[in-house]
Amino acid sequence: MSETKPVTYADVNAAATRIRGHAHRTPVMTSSRLDAEFGASLFFKCENLQRAGAFKFRGAFNALSRFDEQQRGAGVVAFSSGNHAQAIALSARLLGIPATIVMPADAPTVKVAATREYGGSIVIYDRYTQDREQIGRDLAQQRGMTLIPSYDHPDVIAGQGTAAKELFEEVGDLDALFVCLGGGGLLAGSALAARALSPACKLFGCEPQAGNDGQRSLRSGEIVHIDTPDTIADGAQTQHLGHYTFPIIRRDVDDVLTATDAQLIEAMRDCAAYMKLIVEPTGCLGLAAARTMKAQLQGQRVGVIISGGNVAMDRFCELLSA
Amino acid sequence: MSETKPVTYADVNAAATRIRGHAHRTPVMTSSRLDAEFGASLFFKCENLQRAGAFKFRGAFNALSRFDEQQRGAGVVAFSSGNHAQAIALSARLLGIPATIVMPADAPTVKVAATREYGGSIVIYDRYTQDREQIGRDLAQQRGMTLIPSYDHPDVIAGQGTAAKELFEEVGDLDALFVCLGGGGLLAGSALAARALSPACKLFGCEPQAGNDGQRSLRSGEIVHIDTPDTIADGAQTQHLGHYTFPIIRRDVDDVLTATDAQLIEAMRDCAAYMKLIVEPTGCLGLAAARTMKAQLQGQRVGVIISGGNVAMDRFCELLSA
Repeated sequence: MSETKPVTYADVNAAATRIRGHAHRTPVMTSSRLDAEFGASLFFKCENLQRAGAFKFRGAFNALSRFDEQQRGAGVVAFSSGNHAQAIALSARLLGIPATIVMPADAPTVKVAATREYGGSIVIYDRYTQDREQIGRDLAQQRGMTLIPSYDHPDVIAGQGTAAKELFEEVGDLDALFVCLGGGGLLAGSALAARALSPACKLFGCEPQAGNDGQRSLRSGEIVHIDTPDTIADGAQTQHLGHYTFPIIRRDVDDVLTATDAQLIEAMRDCAAYMKLIVEPTGCLGLAAARTMKAQLQGQRVGVIISGGNVAMDRFCELLSA
Repeated sequence: MSETKPVTYADVNAAATRIRGHAHRTPVMTSSRLDAEFGASLFFKCENLQRAGAFKFRGAFNALSRFDEQQRGAGVVAFSSGNHAQAIALSARLLGIPATIVMPADAPTVKVAATREYGGSIVIYDRYTQDREQIGRDLAQQRGMTLIPSYDHPDVIAGQGTAAKELFEEVGDLDALFVCLGGGGLLAGSALAARALSPACKLFGCEPQAGNDGQRSLRSGEIVHIDTPDTIADGAQTQHLGHYTFPIIRRDVDDVLTATDAQLIEAMRDCAAYMKLIVEPTGCLGLAAARTMKAQLQGQRVGVIISGGNVAMDRFCELLSA
């Protein structure tokens, strides 16, 4: 794990070897209904069918499988109330590494339960009075644990890139690829895979309209910080891109698009009705944003990464009935 | 198409060749949550991800691809308000054969619309005053059309058997296989595949408790007719097994189990939460019935065929909130 070398496609390739037999090679799905609507050929990489329900398992498992003996003994610490927490907890269990997850006191009980079920120790903090990053750093320093952040880490980026790698290997060259964007781990990893495997493919990050820091960052050329955005896409409520992810995104991504919550709900309904898939709101960013450029996609081969499916069924039905 | 020769695994094999490149080779999914609950290894063959949303496409495409020149010109007729209608309409469109579907006046508009969208001509009848079989026979005689029934036909049975064939080829021997049972096309086809590819595998038909004609038929040794059962499993509201399906089921199936509507709803919720899949009520018969024999499945390798995913989202959420 070098802090200075830039992440490259060679790292994605190495990650693919490490996660083989541990991560699912998720299916690529198509929908004749959506193809007819777009006048294009759409290929959906279904990371909602990944272990622990999201692409996050790829980066987490890759990062943890690089731990040395000392790191494996002392364990891993992560702060997350979402998919990264479950991915770290499951990866750590599979690799026999102790895991501590720092979660806010008001995290959804279903996510706390899932993290605990995967074997993670949970440290609860008050998000209004305590700083989770400080808690994580303290645990790392006092107990020698290794902190694995949810997106801004070379091994995490390289792991996330394996999803797009599998997509290109299965369907060949694409004209455009739409990728959900929160902190940029999936987008940066996908960019490395796209540039290596389908160099002419246009690459689009897709983020919630309420939190368009990525769009503003790409267009201004520097990382823009925002307040936690109010959106149903809880996996993309990040406040800024990362120091590892932004340079890759700036170099390799063509544009960042946005989608409203209403557009996400429409995409959730269509994924369920046409592809029989439960997709969490964040996982619909790619399809929803692609729809905003339908006119330019006519006749093209279009990839969309569905990032995850972790949404409680009550919440899912509540959103669809709104 | 011989009316006298019994259907065999050779027919399933030939069907697999005919549908290759036309039907999806659907993924096999697993769930660590369900494995933990059962204390067993479960493999779900996801025919809800098949074209037109159900396994029915396999049998329909196989039957239509055997039409001779005269049959192709005159077209196919089918009566169905459900998945068979969509499967025949789509298969016929792909093969350039005119299709006429006889549907009841009170069929769900979403299913009528889907059948029309796939290119089928629709003939509406009044299910209280008209006999759909007579309408179908009249169309066949007057216009020279070929009638393809939804389950009791050698080519349909052989086509449906390709799902279990793919499952065994992908995961190897199983100790038990659970298959939804309506008229028995999927179960009979699965039996042919199981006996050829995993001879020691126990085979269970799974039907709604409200319509246990299959169970009574198997146990009594003759086809039992019942009134249309009142169940949410609308794909298994058949009134009797078929003359082609019953002899195979009687010879090769170990037992027929039943599931209540409440058990189906529980299974729908779990498929959505754990596997991120939309499954229609009928498609949950296998998982729900397997749960009733959990104690005997400890430590075993268990296959479950998820038959389809065609349920309107409003209905899906209504069932889950009940």
